[in-house]
Amino acid sequence: MVQSPAPALAPATVFDWLDEAAELRAEAGLTRTLRSRPADDPVVDLASNDYLGLVHHPAVTRAAADAALRWGGGSTGSRLVTGTTELHTELERELAEFTGFEAALVFSSGYAANLAALTALTDPDTLIVSDAYNHASLIDGCRLSRSDVHRAPHADPDAVADVLRTRTHRRALVVSDTVFSVDGNAAPLTGLSAAARAHGAALLVDDAHGLGVLGPGGAGAPAAAGLAGEPDVVATVTLSKSLGSQGGAVLGPRRVIRHLTETARTFIFDTGLAPAAVGAALGALRLLRAEPHRADRAREVARTLAARLTAAGLHASTPDAAVVSVRTPGPEAAVRWAADCRTAGLAVGCFRPPSVPDGISRLRLTARGDLTDQQITHAVDIITATAPTP
Amino acid sequence: MVQSPAPALAPATVFDWLDEAAELRAEAGLTRTLRSRPADDPVVDLASNDYLGLVHHPAVTRAAADAALRWGGGSTGSRLVTGTTELHTELERELAEFTGFEAALVFSSGYAANLAALTALTDPDTLIVSDAYNHASLIDGCRLSRSDVHRAPHADPDAVADVLRTRTHRRALVVSDTVFSVDGNAAPLTGLSAAARAHGAALLVDDAHGLGVLGPGGAGAPAAAGLAGEPDVVATVTLSKSLGSQGGAVLGPRRVIRHLTETARTFIFDTGLAPAAVGAALGALRLLRAEPHRADRAREVARTLAARLTAAGLHASTPDAAVVSVRTPGPEAAVRWAADCRTAGLAVGCFRPPSVPDGISRLRLTARGDLTDQQITHAVDIITATAPTP
Repeated sequence: MVQSPAPALAPATVFDWLDEAAELRAEAGLTRTLRSRPADDPVVDLASNDYLGLVHHPAVTRAAADAALRWGGGSTGSRLVTGTTELHTELERELAEFTGFEAALVFSSGYAANLAALTALTDPDTLIVSDAYNHASLIDGCRLSRSDVHRAPHADPDAVADVLRTRTHRRALVVSDTVFSVDGNAAPLTGLSAAARAHGAALLVDDAHGLGVLGPGGAGAPAAAGLAGEPDVVATVTLSKSLGSQGGAVLGPRRVIRHLTETARTFIFDTGLAPAAVGAALGALRLLRAEPHRADRAREVARTLAARLTAAGLHASTPDAAVVSVRTPGPEAAVRWAADCRTAGLAVGCFRPPSVPDGISRLRLTARGDLTDQQITHAVDIITATAPTP
Repeated sequence: MVQSPAPALAPATVFDWLDEAAELRAEAGLTRTLRSRPADDPVVDLASNDYLGLVHHPAVTRAAADAALRWGGGSTGSRLVTGTTELHTELERELAEFTGFEAALVFSSGYAANLAALTALTDPDTLIVSDAYNHASLIDGCRLSRSDVHRAPHADPDAVADVLRTRTHRRALVVSDTVFSVDGNAAPLTGLSAAARAHGAALLVDDAHGLGVLGPGGAGAPAAAGLAGEPDVVATVTLSKSLGSQGGAVLGPRRVIRHLTETARTFIFDTGLAPAAVGAALGALRLLRAEPHRADRAREVARTLAARLTAAGLHASTPDAAVVSVRTPGPEAAVRWAADCRTAGLAVGCFRPPSVPDGISRLRLTARGDLTDQQITHAVDIITATAPTP
């Protein structure tokens, strides 16, 4: 037998390199471990993405349970084969209505929705102009597309316009989060849309952290910017944040939704969203339409949290939505700080590289719309009392 | 202002090209439309991937409903932040035990699990050797990896060995479905493993269509081949087929699961699977462990279906699992045949390009383990009566 030029490895050693990688992560303070939480976790949650505090609302959990009992534990197949129930169609109709878009298409995750939009709405003659701080799923979508990708400076419509102006590609797509997950800052959507329009480009925005929080009654950042329903604008959303469920959706002109339905690989080759998740999202959406003040309250909580943390001398972000971040000296300090908060009864997010585009580790706080003033005060007290000494 | 060299487009026209693409699909007989099904659909279902007929079993739907009521409508965040409940951990432990692997990691879809395994277990110095008929999610995972990818002839361990033997890459990963979705044929796992081991490569297999159907009590194709729990073997599964739920999982050595937990982008940057889906999968898994004959019955139904269709003069595949396909003269004939079956009360899958790797359109039949002999006879009667005349 001819010998392989690569080193011969015993089966037990082919994954040795994973242990070496783990050691390097440990040395850099970047070890991650899963913590499984009990159903009756007593800590106050400022770590989740449950922006409106709906995940345990009876209107949501009951709708999930009813959908599972009526429609089954799963959707049984691809949306194009057996995986579309009438419940999916209802959710798509109501999501489109609520956000102001012509049509909607539901996916099993926001990640899948972003991969679909980026691969199906581009081709080898497309230039994608993508914000430098975009979410991992948008970046992976860019990589899966067959297009040239230009990474534009963060939140800079002029830079986007400059790239579009000198392009040689037939088509172009400008891509941005509407609210950046780490600091909760909003993208300059009006400027991005103007830049795209001046140069014949389409605009794709990920409203994962805007839906339910921004715009009239939580209709989202595109609605707030007057861009919902425009013929050149596509948005993606998640059902797993403000809507307390799981899944994602693409919103856009009917021709875009049709194209995704027929061609997007993460739509065609994935099982449809489970009925329980469809039901939960519908329950949350209907509750939000009946009680639109919930969106305002989440933004108010965020402003209050940020102001009090800043007043206490901490480096808090200026929130445009329902996320507040607090800078930390480094990844180890972030882990310790978050652990001390938890010991004191408060769950906060701990974001370290590679989850932070600028490399700065942070605590990340979710300004849940159902937090009471007393809970906010308690949270601020814990965060300041456990802060690392400068 | 400098003019863009690209054609200036009005916003209303930037997506005109999607309509042109739709016309081309229509001309080729490849239009796809969503059909939304009612809860009380009277047709006999041979189109879903509900291989064991568990999706409506009370042990599954009740578990889904209970999980939603107890744990909430969603998991609230990334698995690494707030998205891991004790229920997720239970499912991971029981999945690993059942399939014979050291550990398991649950994802929001099988698609996400495949993207994770392929990107996290490879690097730029890895050669991926991927079966030509692999599922779209494996192909997308290859494209997202930073590795060289070699597309190997379908089900050909000797060809895989040849490629591995002459490689110059430090690492290699052999990738295959265990059961190919379209025809239901099994991969030569023993040969693939031998080829990988002879040349220091790891083996990654997607057991989406094997779990619950192949192996002792449905423990899957790796268990059937004596490869479960081996130090150089990783498997992915879905929870949305035999287990009647939604989601996916990676199974493998503990060090592999740890590495994915800490580095896989579709794990870190995705919301955890919804509690209802976790509950449904656990319910199905426990039912299958209590009633292992369900796996045998699905295979028996497949053999019976294929034999009767062949006896009737149709070109049916020889099933290794719970899928039987029947060749059709072309995509239009496939669509008509499937529509005629539906009119007669039978739902069958209709697979056309690009969902068939060899370009041959087919009817695809799921040999649901809960089909009665009477239902099988009825199905065969309808399929033969509606067959296109040669």
